[in-house]
This record gives sequence, structure tokens and C-alpha cells, in this order.
Amino acid sequence: MNGETIAGRCGARIEIKKILVRDAKKYRPEAEGIALTDNFDEILNDPEISIVVEVMGGLMPAKDYMLRAMRAGKHVVTANKDVIAEHLRELYGIADKHHVDFLYEGSVGGGIPIIKPLKECLTANEISEVMGVINGTTNYMLTKMTEKHISYDAVLRRAQEKGYAEANPSADVDGLDAARKAAILASLAFDTIVEFEDVSVEGISHITEDDIEYGLNLGYVIKLLAVGRNTEEGIDVRVHPVFLPKTHPLASINGVFNAVFVRGNVIGEAMFYGRGAGSLPTASAVVADVIEVARDIVAGTTGRMKYRIGAKKKLCPVEKTRSSYYLRLVVADEPGVLGEIATTFGRAGVSLRSVIQARSTVSGDAEIVAVTHVVTHAAASAAAASLQALPVVREVRSLIRVADGQEDTL
Amino acid sequence: MNGETIAGRCGARIEIKKILVRDAKKYRPEAEGIALTDNFDEILNDPEISIVVEVMGGLMPAKDYMLRAMRAGKHVVTANKDVIAEHLRELYGIADKHHVDFLYEGSVGGGIPIIKPLKECLTANEISEVMGVINGTTNYMLTKMTEKHISYDAVLRRAQEKGYAEANPSADVDGLDAARKAAILASLAFDTIVEFEDVSVEGISHITEDDIEYGLNLGYVIKLLAVGRNTEEGIDVRVHPVFLPKTHPLASINGVFNAVFVRGNVIGEAMFYGRGAGSLPTASAVVADVIEVARDIVAGTTGRMKYRIGAKKKLCPVEKTRSSYYLRLVVADEPGVLGEIATTFGRAGVSLRSVIQARSTVSGDAEIVAVTHVVTHAAASAAAASLQALPVVREVRSLIRVADGQEDTL
Repeated sequence: MNGETIAGRCGARIEIKKILVRDAKKYRPEAEGIALTDNFDEILNDPEISIVVEVMGGLMPAKDYMLRAMRAGKHVVTANKDVIAEHLRELYGIADKHHVDFLYEGSVGGGIPIIKPLKECLTANEISEVMGVINGTTNYMLTKMTEKHISYDAVLRRAQEKGYAEANPSADVDGLDAARKAAILASLAFDTIVEFEDVSVEGISHITEDDIEYGLNLGYVIKLLAVGRNTEEGIDVRVHPVFLPKTHPLASINGVFNAVFVRGNVIGEAMFYGRGAGSLPTASAVVADVIEVARDIVAGTTGRMKYRIGAKKKLCPVEKTRSSYYLRLVVADEPGVLGEIATTFGRAGVSLRSVIQARSTVSGDAEIVAVTHVVTHAAASAAAASLQALPVVREVRSLIRVADGQEDTL
Repeated sequence: MNGETIAGRCGARIEIKKILVRDAKKYRPEAEGIALTDNFDEILNDPEISIVVEVMGGLMPAKDYMLRAMRAGKHVVTANKDVIAEHLRELYGIADKHHVDFLYEGSVGGGIPIIKPLKECLTANEISEVMGVINGTTNYMLTKMTEKHISYDAVLRRAQEKGYAEANPSADVDGLDAARKAAILASLAFDTIVEFEDVSVEGISHITEDDIEYGLNLGYVIKLLAVGRNTEEGIDVRVHPVFLPKTHPLASINGVFNAVFVRGNVIGEAMFYGRGAGSLPTASAVVADVIEVARDIVAGTTGRMKYRIGAKKKLCPVEKTRSSYYLRLVVADEPGVLGEIATTFGRAGVSLRSVIQARSTVSGDAEIVAVTHVVTHAAASAAAASLQALPVVREVRSLIRVADGQEDTL
């Protein structure tokens, strides 16, 4: 696709020489001149191959192949978020040492240009915040739950049928995929290494259609957000569901679309939006990277980018992060319960913005929905624990962050 | 601002050596070591100056200075949309010949990274459409007219008081600024030269609060859009007001914000959003360009980008472009008028989606608002002319395009 145009843009014709597959005997080559192989050494030792494109995914052997390719002087283009999120510093070190190009635009946000803008277009800025809807599967699910008022289990089945969710959906619904991408974005935005395990993660499997309904009535839309902040307490990187005001720029990012919002001290706000997943959007990013390498090869300027990243910075513990919170409680339907609950919030140092006795459950209990003012995550969690310990409280069913529009809180 | 960070990102400290002003005697240097001069030759002949940053604006002498700087082997960074929109090919030729870097991210969309994404991130795509809200002044004015129901003249005065509009507002309100930016975006998106005079331009000065009000009732928000399309009839580049459905991604771009929407055959849709004007956002783009040049200087890779652009392509005449149209007519308040008008539309080959007799004017005439199906601009204009010739029609007061959500029409 677009071969002539691409050749014009590179100043060179790009040819696919070999494709690595698990078992070469199982495939027929799709085009003449493209050899299939199941032996990576055949690629490594082919002096005609300048660029290795890694799109196999997963940590190993992908990471090993990339390192070996770079050590052999080959440029590497990848869309592998798993490897980038855990081994960026090591990969940068080897790329730098061997003066090869190493590009990974496809690892975050599918086709959306976000890695290069962070590395090259926003360089005049100190970035204070990078935030986004960066997992298409969960965004599709939450969008459908909101539009059709269906349960988490029903929407997950539908997503699996459509091929948007895997048979084992954990990587998406537990926020792990978004956390890897958040680690990459935060590393680049804040010039440090944020690793996957540095990200505080909460998925969407506990989100119910009832919470979405209550949220809509309060003026909120739910999104699984990746949040990276450079705060006085340290680098704060998290993935969790958030109730956003309907007017928030990220509230209207629906279905399989992704968007990344960046706040810098010169540019103010910027947002990048597009299709966050799928083979074509990801190909748009991967092929653009290949074209960039080809341009460097033609111009004799490969290895010009310095692949270096700052020292590890202090992390902000999630307990110190600040937000408003939405809580849904199932309580005994007795007089005085609302007062007892409000008192318990007060004792925990959590002031309330609103509290409503919502409706009765089938078992004759009542539901209470409370929205707090901005408090630390530690305070909100402690309040939830105290509430759970009250005899009149059957269950603290939901604890979900609410973005109240203030810059430094979520 | 951000000096240490920037030095780290460049691998070099960037120092401002000289600033060209009209009359050096009128200023005091703001920082030590920065000399003011009113003689461009002092910059040209200073071997310590590697990068010339042109932010004076206007065609001349800015263009002349840039060309002379490049001929002297100096790299040029500019935010000058006037020069880029009219002389891109000449500037590219000189940059290429003298192997210097020539960057102009700040010329479109203020701080929003859009030039580099088009040149480097979307290179795998054949781009079919680039479309945007790219003039902050008119967007501020239309947003305020919509929110506050005030007249064009009142909002223009307010914009002038706030410094958002010039004393002579023509460049903004007549769409000329947006047309220059549209020419630049279309040139890059379609790999050709689109010049300022190739752009069909219509401003906002004829938009009334009544049209905005009727539009809102029909579900539309008005925006001054720049539209570039690569069609079978040729390259179609225009700037004009458009009624957008409230759900359109560009409909929520309010105030001084800008956004550029791109459609490519690999990525699908992508959108870039941010602050489109003002000294800080523009500085974000200009300084990022300076950092890119500095990185090239440090790496010894200046002049690596090929500054070439495709041949001039056939243009699509505006008469052949297709859209739905909104028309507002002032007519005699007589029986049978609606039928006569509908018949006239029919004879002109324009079918109607809706037509409503809206209200009476103070003079006892009636207003009719019609929305057509998708027709050519020629057909819509011919229908308007036939209507104007009817004895019962006092005036065809408005003819405004309506985006109906189909991909190939606006």
C-alpha cells in the first residue's frame, strides 16, 4: 500500500527481505522475493537487511532479538509496549552504543503520533502532566456500558465476540496494557525511567452499570485513564477509572479511539487523538518509523538521535495523590443511617460535596452515594475502611475517583 | 525559561547573540550579552550565529532576510505563515542547495505540533483530507456569538478590546490568515504547492446572531473551517464558515483553541488540538525547532531533511465542491410563497432536506430557512441567484455550508 509515495518520501525503495515466523513450513510466502524463516540468525546474518521491524509482541524473545539486531548494527523499529515499558534504558544504551536508530512510535496510541511529539515537538516545555485514554478495549467496553446500560459481563462477551478483547482479557480490563503505555509516556514526558511496576493500577472489572448510571445523573462519564504527573511529592503515575465531567476534552473520546492530553509550561494544553489500536493504525506508526530510518540511511545520519534518558526520579506514593471520590454504599434501611455515615466521613477528615440516599435494593437494604471534596487517596481509603466497619454498612461497593476540573487533582 | 532542561535536550547550550529591531537606540538590552542591532548584516556576517529565528512577520523584508541567512549557511527557524504560504518552494530550494535546516512549525496552529507530524509521522499514509479550526480570533468571536447571543459588531469590539483582534481585523475575519495556513497544510498533506491565491476564501463578517440561533435549533454549531481535500477533480482548498453537527469532533473546539483533523488511508482519522495563538504557544513551536537544529548541529547532521515538494497539482474549482447548504431568505408574507420557493429550488436541481417558515421581521416580511441535500457549490449559488430574482424574495440573506457527516462532502 502507498509504495510509490513512500519511496518518494524516503528517497529509497524499501523492500521486505525476510519475515520471521514460528514455523516457516506452515506458510506460503505471500509475495515473491519475501522469504519466510523460523531462524532469527538468518535475519541477523543477512548483510542486506538494514532495519529489523519487531511486531511479534511479548517480552521474550522479542527483547533478545532487538538487542541482538542492534548489536549487529541493524536499526530497530518496534511497536512492543511490553519491552519498552520494562527495558527502555537498556535498549537506549545499546542503540546509543551501536549508533543505530531505535524507534517505537507504535508502542503507545496506535497510529496517533505521540512519542515523536513528546521527544521532538514539545522539547521547549517542562511537562507537568500527561494523561490519556490509551486502551481501546476498555474504552469500547465502558462506552457500550454507558450507551446501552448493559453489565460488565455482557459487554466483555460482546467485546470478545468482536475480537476487541482477548479470551483472557486481563491485560486490558485489569489496566496492565494501559499501565505499560503510561510508563512509556511518563518516562518521555518527565525525562526519567518509569517502569511498569512503578505504576499504580486499578482495572475496570469492578465497575457496574449502576455506578455508570449514578455517574451520568451527577454529570460524569467514566473513563479508564492513564495519568502521569510531575509533582512536588515525586513522579505520580497511575491507571484507574475516573468519573470525568461531561465537558472534559477526554470525556468525548469514545469507542476504540484513544487520546493523549499533555500540559506543558510553554504550550499550555495540547491533545493528540486518533485510532488507538488495530493493525492499520499501528502500521501507520511503524511504517513512519521505518521511513524515518530509511531517510537517515539515505542521508548518512543514522544514530543521530541521542538515546539517553534521565536518572530515576522519586516516585509519589499513590496514598499521597489527591482527588475527589465517589463512594457507593449498601446500608441497612434504618433511620439515622445517613447521619452515622456523614459523621464517619467527618471523623476520617473527609468532607463531603454531596450525599444522597439513592434507592432500595431487592433485599430491602438502601444505597447511599457520596461524593467527597478533594482528599488524599490515603484519607479516602481510610474513610472507606471505617465505613465498612460500621454495623449498619453492609458493603462499600464502589470507590471511584472524580475529576473536579482543578488542575492538580484527579 | 527551561534553559537547563533545553540544554540537556540539545546537548548544547543555546545562546541568543543578537536581536534585530527597527531602531536599536529605542531599546535597552534586556539581558547581558544580547546585543540589539538594526542592521541585518551584523547578524549575517557574525560567524558565531548559526541559527536565525525570524519572528518579525509579514512578507518583506522577512523573506529576503531568510533567504540571505540560508545563502550565508545559517539555519532558519520561522513562524511566518505569510512567507511560507507564498514562497515555500523557493525557500525549500535555497535550504536544500545550501544544506541548511529550515523549520516552520510555528507557522500553523501556534504550539500544536502539526507540521512535523505531517512531514514525519503520517508518512505511511496517502492523506485525503486535512481540516481544521486554525484561526483563534474568529473562533473566539464565533464562540462568543454562540454563547452570548451577541452581534458580530459587538463581539468584534470585544475581541479588539481584549487584543484578540487587530484594529484592522481583515486578515482574521475575512479568512486570509486561515487561508495562508490552509495553503501550508494542504501543500504538506498532498505533497504539492498550494499557494495563498489557490485557496477559495469566505470570511465571517456576514454571519449574524440570527443564523447562529437558527443553526443551534437545527443541531449545528458554526465554525470557520479550513478544508483541504485531495479529490478526483483536483486539490480542493477552501476557508469558509460551516455549520457542523454538535457531535462533530471539531464542533467542541472553542475560544482561542485550534484543532487540525487529518484523514489518511492507513491511520484513519487523527486530530491535533491545542492553543492556536499567543506568544507562549508559538514560542513552544519555535523553540522546539531551534532545539531540533541544535541537535543536528551537535550530531553533524544538519541539512539531512530533503526540502523538496511535489509538482503543482490540478486544483478543484470551488464550483465543483459539494455540500449541503443552509439558506435564509427574507420574503413577502403572502400565501403560496413557500411553494414558489420550493419550486425554484427544484428547477435549479437542488433538493431540500427541510424548509421552514421561521418568523416575521419587524417590517412585516417573513423569514424562510432552507437546508438542502448535498449539491455542488455551483448549483447552490445558481439556486440562490434564481431565488433572489423572484419578486416575492426581498433578499437571500445567508448561504452557509452544512456538514452532513458524509466523508466526501462539506
